[in-house]
Amino acid sequence: MPSISQKAVKMPESPIRKLVPYAEKAKSKGTTVYHLNIGQPDIETPAVALEAIRNIDRKVIEYSHSAGFQSYRDRLSSYYKNVGIDVEPEDILVTTGGSEALTFGFMTTCNPDDEVIIPEPFYANYNGFAVAAGLNVVPVTASIDNGFALPPIEEIEKKITPKTKAIVICNPGNPTGYLYSQEELEKLRDIVLQHNLFLFADEVYREFCYDGAKPFSVMNLSGIENNVIMIDSVSKRYSMCGARIGAIISKNKEVMESALKFGQARLSPPTVDQIASEAALDTPQSYFDDVVAEYVERRNIMVEGLNDIPGVFCPKPSGAFYCVAKFPVDSTEKFCQWLLEEFEYEGATVMMAPASGFYSSEGEGLQEARIAYVLNQDALKASVKCLEEALKVYPGRL
Amino acid sequence: MPSISQKAVKMPESPIRKLVPYAEKAKSKGTTVYHLNIGQPDIETPAVALEAIRNIDRKVIEYSHSAGFQSYRDRLSSYYKNVGIDVEPEDILVTTGGSEALTFGFMTTCNPDDEVIIPEPFYANYNGFAVAAGLNVVPVTASIDNGFALPPIEEIEKKITPKTKAIVICNPGNPTGYLYSQEELEKLRDIVLQHNLFLFADEVYREFCYDGAKPFSVMNLSGIENNVIMIDSVSKRYSMCGARIGAIISKNKEVMESALKFGQARLSPPTVDQIASEAALDTPQSYFDDVVAEYVERRNIMVEGLNDIPGVFCPKPSGAFYCVAKFPVDSTEKFCQWLLEEFEYEGATVMMAPASGFYSSEGEGLQEARIAYVLNQDALKASVKCLEEALKVYPGRL
Repeated sequence: MPSISQKAVKMPESPIRKLVPYAEKAKSKGTTVYHLNIGQPDIETPAVALEAIRNIDRKVIEYSHSAGFQSYRDRLSSYYKNVGIDVEPEDILVTTGGSEALTFGFMTTCNPDDEVIIPEPFYANYNGFAVAAGLNVVPVTASIDNGFALPPIEEIEKKITPKTKAIVICNPGNPTGYLYSQEELEKLRDIVLQHNLFLFADEVYREFCYDGAKPFSVMNLSGIENNVIMIDSVSKRYSMCGARIGAIISKNKEVMESALKFGQARLSPPTVDQIASEAALDTPQSYFDDVVAEYVERRNIMVEGLNDIPGVFCPKPSGAFYCVAKFPVDSTEKFCQWLLEEFEYEGATVMMAPASGFYSSEGEGLQEARIAYVLNQDALKASVKCLEEALKVYPGRL
Repeated sequence: MPSISQKAVKMPESPIRKLVPYAEKAKSKGTTVYHLNIGQPDIETPAVALEAIRNIDRKVIEYSHSAGFQSYRDRLSSYYKNVGIDVEPEDILVTTGGSEALTFGFMTTCNPDDEVIIPEPFYANYNGFAVAAGLNVVPVTASIDNGFALPPIEEIEKKITPKTKAIVICNPGNPTGYLYSQEELEKLRDIVLQHNLFLFADEVYREFCYDGAKPFSVMNLSGIENNVIMIDSVSKRYSMCGARIGAIISKNKEVMESALKFGQARLSPPTVDQIASEAALDTPQSYFDDVVAEYVERRNIMVEGLNDIPGVFCPKPSGAFYCVAKFPVDSTEKFCQWLLEEFEYEGATVMMAPASGFYSSEGEGLQEARIAYVLNQDALKASVKCLEEALKVYPGRL
């Protein structure tokens, strides 16, 4: 039997996957499991997008252009201009989700064994895309104590070697919810320019900013137009994760021209989903206002609830719909498994993502867990209560 | 400005792309361009699939399981069993098109610099997937003289080195339309076993076999269950290329387990398209009977028409909806460009894909072109007439 590849061996497993059998078992016993572990919002997809799907009047579901439908790219450009980001249709390549956008970005810019610097904790799948492209992730550890702000720029600069090709950020951040300030981004700009690197920014949570905070896009950093690559997706913005429509966006013509060659090899992103995504651009502002108001409530329930539990610390994020909390336990890997395997309170328990999966440095984040506040307010209140009761009896409690 | 990657530089351009501006220009002058250059059939998508899209009643377009919806995999398994291929749901990972299936397959089995042997001419995008995975394609040239049958097995065996990891075939073939016999496949089985290789078979044209010919699946080769990886897609079967739903299929548990890790990194294949693909499994047999009858007519018009033109030779394929013809010209790259740039007959011209793009060996296929007979019969008759008239006046005619 022929052997599998080294990449396949190195390919990380989803940090949640190990817990899935325990969650299944809990459910099979009749326990309600509150899924705080994944970023699949319960928010309804905008009606305009669902209607566009239901009104499909094509007789043949054909390929689109490899860069996406021109009409969609034209309207996406207008959307960006409306939110203050100067993007032309030719700066956009429509991809199969943000996942493909980052894969194309890595493949287009980095050689095998090149290094990409990523502040940790970071979205675990960045590891997978890096492994697929043959890259090495070099983490710079952010601290829960200051809410996962950008680590000191000197710490980042120390990690730069001749192999470094890019810095990757997610803003607002998954898993931290941290929103980088313009000042932090300008510090990144300076070292990106100085060391001639690419700066990837995953900005898929742009619409989810709270308490009056405004996101600052890397596309608006002046003087590094050719270094900046923005990753975007409709998944979170319109709660249509299953549409698998994203985009890679850059003013760098050589990058876009090359990314298109990867796009041509896979022919096109999905057609019906592009039509739905184009229609979603007509989503009224009231939808976002309602969603943001709802997430603010949810965040407050979750973060304040967590901080009221003795020994738990959770910084209050300004964006996305995640928070990372620190628990007074031996290990959140064990705690999360125990919650599913051995605990229930009033017939329910909680599934969280142990934060170790979001750190690349061995031994970091062992007491932290990521919580996606994507459930309704009652479920979140019940989840907080569950965690409070659990920590009273968990044998590994410190 | 940071440089792009070596992969991006190596990434091949679509063999047709160079011709696109000429086609656009011809159209802007009012010339009808018969697109024989791409495999985008005009056949209608089955009504059951279109209805499933129009009847979507979900409120949230959520992720599916990373391996695809269980219900879809269950029904796909039944579909395979119905066509005589023993595939269980756990042998199937649903992918974003056959493209992603092959990418996952390459990433899972091959290390950078490994070699994959492919009979040429072959589907040009295999080059792209190989470059993305860092592999080297080693071609074995098939001959138009015997209709692109499998090259002598000794020729294939000669190409095997310690770096060889897999043999890749497409059956029935794009671009040749050639259908491998069971005997040819058993010869491949023997060398695959002897040299401990993987055998990839892209069988997306399974439904398109003519004149009573029956396709033989690599999944039915006995004794190499752990070596065989089948690539499939709904694109051609149900004329829904834009759905981007495919599958990687293998009995090799280690391969499937590893491919799933790549699948988890990109979260899931598109949701609505999976629902449409599942519904498409209810397509009545009469649909396929009609489609096959139509393609037989089209093939006959095209192949017989081509062979009636003095100096043109086109083997008659038994499958898919392509043929490769040899023209009495200096170069089909020049001829195809000239057809768009300088020729028209009764207000129309023809766009074909120069076959050089389907060969990996430099200098092969220079007088050949691929023709996709995906247009209606009148358009095909007019195309043949166009080519006949063109060859009377083409300055590079031999």
